[in-house]
Amino acid sequence: MSWPPMAASEKGRDIFKLSRDWLSVEEAVAAVGSASCGAISLFIGTTREDQSAGRKVIGLEYEAYEAMVTSELAELCRDVRARWPDVAHICVHHRLGWVPVGEASVVAAVSSPHRQQGQRAVAHLLDGLKAKVPVWKKEVYEDRGASWKENAECAWASCHGNAAALNH
Amino acid sequence: MSWPPMAASEKGRDIFKLSRDWLSVEEAVAAVGSASCGAISLFIGTTREDQSAGRKVIGLEYEAYEAMVTSELAELCRDVRARWPDVAHICVHHRLGWVPVGEASVVAAVSSPHRQQGQRAVAHLLDGLKAKVPVWKKEVYEDRGASWKENAECAWASCHGNAAALNH
Repeated sequence: MSWPPMAASEKGRDIFKLSRDWLSVEEAVAAVGSASCGAISLFIGTTREDQSAGRKVIGLEYEAYEAMVTSELAELCRDVRARWPDVAHICVHHRLGWVPVGEASVVAAVSSPHRQQGQRAVAHLLDGLKAKVPVWKKEVYEDRGASWKENAECAWASCHGNAAALNH
Repeated sequence: MSWPPMAASEKGRDIFKLSRDWLSVEEAVAAVGSASCGAISLFIGTTREDQSAGRKVIGLEYEAYEAMVTSELAELCRDVRARWPDVAHICVHHRLGWVPVGEASVVAAVSSPHRQQGQRAVAHLLDGLKAKVPVWKKEVYEDRGASWKENAECAWASCHGNAAALNH
């Protein structure tokens, strides 16, 4: 552990947001800021101008099982803190609805006294987010077709009825 | 390599800045943005409310051998691209002069098609920045005393005459 320890009033915070609006990176950075930390590690996931079976992706449409997202994220944060106890604050903002190419669908930020713990924590957080948190995405193509995507990293994706039902 | 490959006009960019002004995270994010990338990995180094031999740090004062910083950063970026060829753009903004507790001294951002390469690239970039790039910091204490700090990770720090001469 580092000096100074966080004051009782500065207990590690977990900050989550699901939003249909543009995500602000500065907001996530401010949310995890701490005088006791020298490092903020971040990851921003953006919609990529991808191609799927010859069709060009123009954007992604995100949906979530919102009631379950928070509890899964809280569980992930407990796991992160057990592995890297020096981690101070953790912020995960996820966008829902339409996210065009180039815009952010997720912003994850972690503050820590030194950089190594924070960088490992962010990588672990993203692995967990992809594997366990119930957020689905639909690729929307230039020809206006669309297809729900299963996340290759997600343990429960193949059991998700909506994903199968909405494939088209 | 991923689809689509970056267009010739979108060759991987290395963007460096040394600045005496507040560093904008949004500016670094915008600098590396690319439609062909789904991931932006970032690191922000901030001044930590540390204590050195019982004296509380209120800020850091940074100086650089500016002519050499750019060539060392360019060399680091070549190394990153050799290890992770999918990396698109790399941005390193470093602040000089007075950086009070809580403010950023360095913002590093890397865009990549997928997150793993970018996260590894940022971690490697920071290791290299600490070890090889000629930037020095002076801790300034509450009692107005100050002390130049050698970077424990830096290969040439103990040979740097200024650092020794300015220790007080």
